[in-house]
Amino acid sequence: MKWVELAQEPCSVARTVAVIGDRWTLMILRDCFLGVRRFEAFQARLGISRTITAARLKALVDEGVLKKLAYQTSPERYEYRLTEKGHDLYPVIMAIANFGDHHYAEAAGPPLLRRHKACGCNFHPVMTCSRCQAPVGAREVETRPGPGAKLSA
Amino acid sequence: MKWVELAQEPCSVARTVAVIGDRWTLMILRDCFLGVRRFEAFQARLGISRTITAARLKALVDEGVLKKLAYQTSPERYEYRLTEKGHDLYPVIMAIANFGDHHYAEAAGPPLLRRHKACGCNFHPVMTCSRCQAPVGAREVETRPGPGAKLSA
Repeated sequence: MKWVELAQEPCSVARTVAVIGDRWTLMILRDCFLGVRRFEAFQARLGISRTITAARLKALVDEGVLKKLAYQTSPERYEYRLTEKGHDLYPVIMAIANFGDHHYAEAAGPPLLRRHKACGCNFHPVMTCSRCQAPVGAREVETRPGPGAKLSA
Repeated sequence: MKWVELAQEPCSVARTVAVIGDRWTLMILRDCFLGVRRFEAFQARLGISRTITAARLKALVDEGVLKKLAYQTSPERYEYRLTEKGHDLYPVIMAIANFGDHHYAEAAGPPLLRRHKACGCNFHPVMTCSRCQAPVGAREVETRPGPGAKLSA
């Protein structure tokens, strides 16, 4: 198919990048998957202002990616946890980390190792086909308008 | 491990999101994987200014993600193609598209269907372990400092 046949309207990707297509938001999500939960920790790790940190966390809560839970009363204190929707972003963060490990790691190697608990091995993520389980690269994929496509005139 | 043991310095993820952690950049990359190559096409599809389009394309060329190739002389005209490094971003874009299809698609269904040429089926991407080939979720992964880690004091 030709790209000109595709919708120019907001689609799955456009809506997702409107939520996560921001440097600090992606760094906050990375940290969430590393177990960071508290405002001061996010802010300190990213080295950004309280204002930026608060705005990004609020946007992720409003979007249902994070939930805010009280962990202490008087004074009330909150922490931020990934929702199930937030957990669904793990492949995005892993794909970014894997690209970074490949193209931007220090000569010494990657900053983090990830162990798959089920098999006990350090691993990297491999994108595979949900039907035949084989690894999939861009050149092996054909796209066609789906049921939710809005074709341009 | 505790997150406090991790480096606060730029790491694989930080460097990658410094390059692609931008809404328009991610949309341009999505379009590259759909076969879009020309300046006017990127601009028209995204509905953004020439200035923003030009800045994002230049940054991706400078970073080695895209290459600029002349497709016509007098007047000279260029198109933008993914490099091998650019192709390595496919799992990132696919993970974003898959999240969007799951959480933001129209009721009718996803805007695009992707067919895996090797098996002939429409598919969605599944993130798997490079060692045991099983699907991997966030809760099944343990992280530890790698050889390139800079531990905080």
